[in-house]
Amino acid sequence: MEENKATLPFVIDFNLLSGHSSSRTTTKRHLSKMKGMYADDLAFEQKLSEGDPLLYEFYELVLPEKPGELLFGTSIVNPGKVGNEYYMTKGHFHTILETAEVYYCLSGEGILLMENPEGDWDTQEMKPGSAVYVPPRYAHRSINTGNVPLVMFFVFRADAGHDYGTIETKGYRKLVVEQDGQVAIIDNPKFAW
Amino acid sequence: MEENKATLPFVIDFNLLSGHSSSRTTTKRHLSKMKGMYADDLAFEQKLSEGDPLLYEFYELVLPEKPGELLFGTSIVNPGKVGNEYYMTKGHFHTILETAEVYYCLSGEGILLMENPEGDWDTQEMKPGSAVYVPPRYAHRSINTGNVPLVMFFVFRADAGHDYGTIETKGYRKLVVEQDGQVAIIDNPKFAW
Repeated sequence: MEENKATLPFVIDFNLLSGHSSSRTTTKRHLSKMKGMYADDLAFEQKLSEGDPLLYEFYELVLPEKPGELLFGTSIVNPGKVGNEYYMTKGHFHTILETAEVYYCLSGEGILLMENPEGDWDTQEMKPGSAVYVPPRYAHRSINTGNVPLVMFFVFRADAGHDYGTIETKGYRKLVVEQDGQVAIIDNPKFAW
Repeated sequence: MEENKATLPFVIDFNLLSGHSSSRTTTKRHLSKMKGMYADDLAFEQKLSEGDPLLYEFYELVLPEKPGELLFGTSIVNPGKVGNEYYMTKGHFHTILETAEVYYCLSGEGILLMENPEGDWDTQEMKPGSAVYVPPRYAHRSINTGNVPLVMFFVFRADAGHDYGTIETKGYRKLVVEQDGQVAIIDNPKFAW
């Protein structure tokens, strides 16, 4: 879409249970694209040697990267674990740090993990009908703690941009893992303070 | 919430079928608040004399009115007609005209009617799973053409603002009515050209 052309109204379907659209294709992240992002490198290599499972996928629209436009779509995180750490998205800061994002959970259950450069962090529980506000400045990662896909509808400013690099380099301060059959939030031993 | 205070992450539940939240209350628009907005004034007065039905309701969050923040919630438009015109929201332009909005239909069926100051107009069909993009500059009105509540999740920039006055004075160029048992889009005889 050209930058200088006015955007026109349009509709896209996203199934309320599966999150999938009949008219678009998703961007897919398989395990092999997440090297170094899970705490347990041995468990990662072991799992990868058995195949390269799809961890998550999401829809990416193309709209003018202007502060008055909004991008939206769904993300679908599959259930599973690498070691005791639940399947999750890479997560990202927005390049324009002062921009928020809204997540609305359609199906499944999980946790939205958030942290800002100042070191404040937060987790919010996602279940069908949960709308989570990711305020400006907060990196955000979606984590599936359940047994079915975690499906969320998201909206953010079209010029916000994605900064994956900071997270890939530093990691998050916290991990979400299974401990004694329960969901637990623990310190990330790999976090680059 | 104070303007100079950083926004923190939070979660709100919005039931995926009813749209209702257990922790908030809605703003309600009854028929009496819509005087002059339906084409058939006689049918309006007749209906009002029989009671003052709830046409629609919606959730309004309070967040800093900054371009990096987002407001979100649900709107619920009840089924019904005034004359042959379906129950609808007032609709509005954004005060900051160059800001978009996203609507995601959770339940029911209807039409999103949009028009910009240049006179371009558009309608998009809403059914469960339809995500409609309201581009910058477009006034937007939700119309319930079905038999159950039309429930939508919406997101827009927190500083966008609502300009209801232009619509209240001029109206929309088009009406959505029932003709011979079908949904029809016709010219608005009251539109102030």
